[in-house]
Amino acid sequence: MEGEQLPEASSQADERSRLVVVKHEPFNAETPPEALAAARTPTPSFFVRSNSAEPELSLATHRVTVEGAVEHPFTLKVAELARGPLRSLPVTLECAGNGRTSMTPLPEGEPWQQGALGTAVWSGVPLAEVLQRARLKPGALEVLVEGADGDASKRFARALPLAKALHPDTLLALEMNGAPLTRAHGAPMRLLVPGWYGMASVKWVTRLEVRTQPFEGYYQRERYIYDRGDGQAIEPVTRMQVKSLITSPAEGTRVAPGRVVVQGMAWSGERRVVRVEVAVDGGDHWRAATLLETPRPSAWVRWAFTWEGAKAGRHTLRARATDEAGETQPERAPWNRLGYGNNAVPVRVVEVG
Amino acid sequence: MEGEQLPEASSQADERSRLVVVKHEPFNAETPPEALAAARTPTPSFFVRSNSAEPELSLATHRVTVEGAVEHPFTLKVAELARGPLRSLPVTLECAGNGRTSMTPLPEGEPWQQGALGTAVWSGVPLAEVLQRARLKPGALEVLVEGADGDASKRFARALPLAKALHPDTLLALEMNGAPLTRAHGAPMRLLVPGWYGMASVKWVTRLEVRTQPFEGYYQRERYIYDRGDGQAIEPVTRMQVKSLITSPAEGTRVAPGRVVVQGMAWSGERRVVRVEVAVDGGDHWRAATLLETPRPSAWVRWAFTWEGAKAGRHTLRARATDEAGETQPERAPWNRLGYGNNAVPVRVVEVG
Repeated sequence: MEGEQLPEASSQADERSRLVVVKHEPFNAETPPEALAAARTPTPSFFVRSNSAEPELSLATHRVTVEGAVEHPFTLKVAELARGPLRSLPVTLECAGNGRTSMTPLPEGEPWQQGALGTAVWSGVPLAEVLQRARLKPGALEVLVEGADGDASKRFARALPLAKALHPDTLLALEMNGAPLTRAHGAPMRLLVPGWYGMASVKWVTRLEVRTQPFEGYYQRERYIYDRGDGQAIEPVTRMQVKSLITSPAEGTRVAPGRVVVQGMAWSGERRVVRVEVAVDGGDHWRAATLLETPRPSAWVRWAFTWEGAKAGRHTLRARATDEAGETQPERAPWNRLGYGNNAVPVRVVEVG
Repeated sequence: MEGEQLPEASSQADERSRLVVVKHEPFNAETPPEALAAARTPTPSFFVRSNSAEPELSLATHRVTVEGAVEHPFTLKVAELARGPLRSLPVTLECAGNGRTSMTPLPEGEPWQQGALGTAVWSGVPLAEVLQRARLKPGALEVLVEGADGDASKRFARALPLAKALHPDTLLALEMNGAPLTRAHGAPMRLLVPGWYGMASVKWVTRLEVRTQPFEGYYQRERYIYDRGDGQAIEPVTRMQVKSLITSPAEGTRVAPGRVVVQGMAWSGERRVVRVEVAVDGGDHWRAATLLETPRPSAWVRWAFTWEGAKAGRHTLRARATDEAGETQPERAPWNRLGYGNNAVPVRVVEVG
């Protein structure tokens, strides 16, 4: 067991060296900007968001309890699940707090800029298959997924509505980018909820409980909620909102006058992005960018825009994405007390000349 | 005359090399961040905002017409005025568009970040003295000050209400930081309107006209107005609003854990700043900073705050100033179509460790 942990710990140290640290304990770090320019984010550069210290669990021995409103509660051996077959999907994960530092007034919480974001190919077994083995009882409402992180009073645990839990793309993931999960990313097994902000993708899964009553835990009711602070009803944070990112020209770079290729990413939770537009300088003059691949749900799409006739001096670039439901990124996202879901149009200041 | 212009042109080239260029023609450039950390901004680092090409006027021969609703219209020889005595004042000048790139939606206009700002000691003759020589007629309402820049159809010209024009601190300035004005800063003579945004301090003054009817020129009625775009009345841009700047730690720097000294500037147009507060990380926990000098109107005051126990990782710092009238910087300034007067609380992301 010692021997099995060693390579993992080593790859983890390597991983951390490429991240932009936000907090050391618990470890929270962003994907560096250059890694966000690639279609797939390499694991050593993939952001890490943890609410507590990272548990150390062994793939060989770790077991997950499956219980609650099921006919056949059982204990799942993760090592058996890891033998496959595994289903693989490219999925974009974004922390709900990504972009918090651009919200005004500045909310409390981890000071994420724009790097709590990444896209990997995830491989795992549909959660639905495991639930089917346990056979749901009538009245099943949601599936509580509990991690091994946090102490007993504040375990990281999240309940997923039954329909989303049974979606074939909702995985108990064992691999990321073709290799076993690293400890920081939830080894040996995490939930992966495509299209939802990262908090739903519980790491270090240790217990599944099918519930007939809504779960009221801390990370369900006190955090990951939109509290507008204006007396409006509080809503849970779920689906990633439509958003885009400008990856090139990079922040603070100088580009030659004339033709400048602007590039970036766009995504919208469970929906397909259908349009990305770019505006050069301020005002309301938006022009269509080109999508560089066929958009699919739950993963970002790359886009490019050719800016002709860039003149020497300082300019601003903005990008905005629209999804198949017709939702467009706002220039300013609605403020909320905990600073979630900031999907505002990105503004990039560029020096030409 | 050739000989007289040469040194000026040469010092100007030197000046431009230290500025952060926003536009080459007409020349617009920001004060570099490091220069904003000094109580007085060196002339070669002092921001330049011009709406048209810079006129080339000779101190030896330039004359200013004084006319309109006056008993004794006359022609002012600038060289005579320059012989003194001159009145000297430290005055902070901020472009009305400073901070425009942080407004959302991003307005059109020069993409100023936070460097269209500087403080110099200005020396000149009170405008009131010149007006007294001409003797105002009854019914005088405002004083139109015209620059030599812009073509005949769109000359840069601004009218100042009589009370402000007659204020003893409103100067026809001939020197900046103890030396004759440079061409970029309005040589040989500019208006200096302490406490008002920079557009009021007309450069390259060529004509003064005492008016009995409101001036309706382009730079008075079409620009430098607050147009909220919501049907509210359009208001002229006048007084600089209460604002602060964090100068240290500088953007993108890493500081050692423990005790971190946070420093900056604060100003509020014609009013004194009475309080600066700092918040570490998000939320609403503001603590008093120390003002490092006795606040005076029209010039910024330096402040410092000691942040104890800074832990490794990323943190955010905010500063907010309050003036003697009780006005406090907002976390977000009201949007307006042309992007003026952004006095929002500054947010500085700092890496500790």
